[in-house]
Amino acid sequence: MNLDDLIQRLREFADARDWEPFHTPKNLVMALSGEVGELTALFQWLTPEESAGAMRDPQLRPEVLDEIADVTLYLVRLADMLGIDLIEAANAKIDRNEVRFPRAQK
Amino acid sequence: MNLDDLIQRLREFADARDWEPFHTPKNLVMALSGEVGELTALFQWLTPEESAGAMRDPQLRPEVLDEIADVTLYLVRLADMLGIDLIEAANAKIDRNEVRFPRAQK
Amino acid sequence: MNLDDLIQRLREFADARDWEPFHTPKNLVMALSGEVGELTALFQWLTPEESAGAMRDPQLRPEVLDEIADVTLYLVRLADMLGIDLIEAANAKIDRNEVRFPRAQK
Amino acid sequence: MNLDDLIQRLREFADARDWEPFHTPKNLVMALSGEVGELTALFQWLTPEESAGAMRDPQLRPEVLDEIADVTLYLVRLADMLGIDLIEAANAKIDRNEVRFPRAQK
Repeated sequence: MNLDDLIQRLREFADARDWEPFHTPKNLVMALSGEVGELTALFQWLTPEESAGAMRDPQLRPEVLDEIADVTLYLVRLADMLGIDLIEAANAKIDRNEVRFPRAQK
Repeated sequence: MNLDDLIQRLREFADARDWEPFHTPKNLVMALSGEVGELTALFQWLTPEESAGAMRDPQLRPEVLDEIADVTLYLVRLADMLGIDLIEAANAKIDRNEVRFPRAQK
Repeated sequence: MNLDDLIQRLREFADARDWEPFHTPKNLVMALSGEVGELTALFQWLTPEESAGAMRDPQLRPEVLDEIADVTLYLVRLADMLGIDLIEAANAKIDRNEVRFPRAQK
Repeated sequence: MNLDDLIQRLREFADARDWEPFHTPKNLVMALSGEVGELTALFQWLTPEESAGAMRDPQLRPEVLDEIADVTLYLVRLADMLGIDLIEAANAKIDRNEVRFPRAQK
């Protein structure tokens, strides 16, 4: 499965539940933000070092997977409703960042 | 370009700038959350109907593209640092959602 | 009870549970952000009009009160750990906003 | 000045600019979330230890004050539009937390 399949699967999922009327960009931005909040809560009391081992913690691992998935689903759905190609937009931004942030001298 | 290329490009971008030490999951979750905050600000005073036309607004369009890109970059980078396959995690979540949310009767 | 009493009560609450080491500004900002995410989730599918009646909905009312309270607790605690007087900072910002945003002609 | 004065000042500020129609709870939750995102961005690359010294950094100090103020303004305005007494709601939540989280044995 790739990103295009995921976009298509989310369209069918929303259509089968009559959820399109709720999926305005405004509402989806809020849903995305809510899920990022839940993801944030998983990391809030961890040190940066502990956070690097989160996926080796048997209790935390499925929670992180679940929240990362929710964030992805709403971001992909939001981009689809806005007509934005996420990969293209991301690459265009890296192009701009390469100008803004010079490489380290090594 | 696809998602795998984007992951690779972000690795090289961070490496060329010596940014890996800053890219702990805890820090990246905060960066993701900060960018979602900027995206949210673009939509906060719009009605849901206005938000659906955001990409036809010549001032708003590049701002939305820019913020959606930033959100994508940090999400992809975070998942990479955690060793998570975003597409796989997202599909596994839809599998669970299909059980939780029954289809509408049509 | 007023804001000063609340600040004091939160200090005693954290001290009695040995939570001070976790209450760095970085961690508290994440906790604040996580609670704002939960608050956002309560409003994400409501129309703006429905949101205005949220406190008359018997199911939503206690949830909104609970999340607004959590946001307040972390904001007050964060400001205390940073040595910031919230009321003073807020008033100084309104002073600046009065210059930035002119009054409507009526 | 106290919290009641701040509530009143924000009412007059919004009224003088004809902003009430935009100040639905849904929109204000988004505005609050956007400001928390900006606050989060100030702390994202700091270690927890560095974050504790943020107010002694001459560049960071005014930025933190500014964002903490914005968060406070939108939280106070949101609570006012919802008819919620922030101090009362916060204290009721601490009452519940005292039952949920036992004190440390010292």
